Amino acid sequence: MSGTELCLGDLGERGIQEKVLRPRYGSTEGFGDDSAFLAKVDRPSELVATTDSCPTPVVDLLREPDLYHAGWLLATINLSDLAAAGAEPLGLVVNYTLPKTTTVVAFERLLDGVDDCCRAHGTKVAGGDLRDGSPQLTATAIGRCAPGSRLRRSGAKAGDHLMLVGSPGYLWAAALLETGRATLPKPARDEIWDRARRPMAQLKAGRTLAEAGHVRTAMDVSDGLFATVRTLCEANGLGAVVTGEFALDEPVAAVAAQCGVRAFDLAETWGDWGLVVVAEDAGQVRKTLAEEDIPVQEIGSFTADTAITKGTAPWQGIAQERFSTSSWHGGELSTLVTEVLGV
Amino acid sequence: MSGTELCLGDLGERGIQEKVLRPRYGSTEGFGDDSAFLAKVDRPSELVATTDSCPTPVVDLLREPDLYHAGWLLATINLSDLAAAGAEPLGLVVNYTLPKTTTVVAFERLLDGVDDCCRAHGTKVAGGDLRDGSPQLTATAIGRCAPGSRLRRSGAKAGDHLMLVGSPGYLWAAALLETGRATLPKPARDEIWDRARRPMAQLKAGRTLAEAGHVRTAMDVSDGLFATVRTLCEANGLGAVVTGEFALDEPVAAVAAQCGVRAFDLAETWGDWGLVVVAEDAGQVRKTLAEEDIPVQEIGSFTADTAITKGTAPWQGIAQERFSTSSWHGGELSTLVTEVLGV
Repeated sequence: MSGTELCLGDLGERGIQEKVLRPRYGSTEGFGDDSAFLAKVDRPSELVATTDSCPTPVVDLLREPDLYHAGWLLATINLSDLAAAGAEPLGLVVNYTLPKTTTVVAFERLLDGVDDCCRAHGTKVAGGDLRDGSPQLTATAIGRCAPGSRLRRSGAKAGDHLMLVGSPGYLWAAALLETGRATLPKPARDEIWDRARRPMAQLKAGRTLAEAGHVRTAMDVSDGLFATVRTLCEANGLGAVVTGEFALDEPVAAVAAQCGVRAFDLAETWGDWGLVVVAEDAGQVRKTLAEEDIPVQEIGSFTADTAITKGTAPWQGIAQERFSTSSWHGGELSTLVTEVLGV
Repeated sequence: MSGTELCLGDLGERGIQEKVLRPRYGSTEGFGDDSAFLAKVDRPSELVATTDSCPTPVVDLLREPDLYHAGWLLATINLSDLAAAGAEPLGLVVNYTLPKTTTVVAFERLLDGVDDCCRAHGTKVAGGDLRDGSPQLTATAIGRCAPGSRLRRSGAKAGDHLMLVGSPGYLWAAALLETGRATLPKPARDEIWDRARRPMAQLKAGRTLAEAGHVRTAMDVSDGLFATVRTLCEANGLGAVVTGEFALDEPVAAVAAQCGVRAFDLAETWGDWGLVVVAEDAGQVRKTLAEEDIPVQEIGSFTADTAITKGTAPWQGIAQERFSTSSWHGGELSTLVTEVLGV
């Protein structure tokens, strides 16, 4: 057997622990103990936690599947929920179920993806569990909020401004490029691919706005902007008017223009882990985030009735739903692009 | 369609949220938010977390499978890891993957099992995630330790006493009864079944001993007593001598006697979530736990060499190992009993 074909089943649990996990995580306090050590906390805190499993990354449909992407995504989706609470991450615990036939090389790619993503967000894997079976990647992120600063989905009022933090459209711009619907020079193409495969959670924005008391409520964009706004409307008994206008980043805007996709339609997609925040004073949010070089745009405002409109017409947007036929994780790429963007 | 046959796929994600989860968890602070609320912490704390997926409960092999058992077990195995750290639980976050064809009734049984188990341990489900797919039940338990009291696997010294907290043997006594290898009057049989299907984590013992500073290290018995002792020996660079003697609870002892199984062999099995603690002063541990009515017995002591012996012979005990052929989760019951207990 060549070195690259060594599988988890060849090592066994104790072999995996000693040959793969200890070299990587052995210096982490609590390594090998029944419970992982997260953090010492000596300030009054509100503790939060979130757990999410990783779907098949859309970028795996674009190019060769790589567990690095799944690992990165697993960390991002969990950290993004902490961002929505305005929390500081204390650590991630991971739970991997993988077939015995998983190669050690592929497993290391997974761990690299999770570890790199955690590092990029200033946190780490504190511990985890591994067992053999049908592949499933799950993680839990734990965070702390300063007392009274924790953001929830409720708390919005009619007239409040709906603002989208982050730069949407990179994932689906990559899909438009990879399916040949648009072309760009290599540097721009590489930039889009890199952003698509390594989306960042808006942790800094969430925490900064929460601790400054500038926003009333927040929710991340996991299933499309429409689903997010609809959920916020329901949670607050309000309606919303969105403008339907959005200024995309330059390379993403170029892709949209080539494909005849409206900028807002690309901004509506999911996969970039934007954060929707709700503020009484939009200027304050803009100013605070500008100081941190974090992009934010107003997309609309809440209304006292419960209708959700884009301009003057009802907004019929993208809304993935689990346990239903409108769940789009996986599937053939070109069909998916047509379903999501109509091109 | 009759009401009892309603499936998760019939409700969809939003229907499940409104019709099943909100009635049960809607009053939990943070319900519906991106991140679950765990707790306010205002004392200096060391925070710990642990995550485990639920294997097929052995009790499902004994009688009709019931997601209640899986739910109870899921909570217990995670809380048991907090017990080993000497931690107070702050809450559980759950992550369920279930097929669309799961009936709502079966899903409610799962939630009942988790909720009942959490309640029995003085904690609760703080939040979670649900998606459709091949069944997998995962949870993460988060806890706090008083500063400096957190127990680890390392810290033991030669001469320290190895003590087993809890009453082992109930799960496998139930297996011996159900496969007709032993018979008992109904009350005793019912007691064994009830203990086997609702094992309790030793949270109170772990925390009490940790905060009193009476033990140096701890680890729960997840894969058999031998595997636990071996891991503790490895973590501390020590060996151990176990006595091979153990006084089982009365109904379990009766089953062992009928089957010609030595008491210690039944005590060696897994599934009762005992806690192995290591103490310099065994009397102190005995006295402290006696005050709380928690059973504990000394099973041996650590030695300066690295041999693991039972009496005077090498101890060849039960040790499940994942990613290997000695993983016994699932399988035919009577064969399993023979493999585990030799009868």
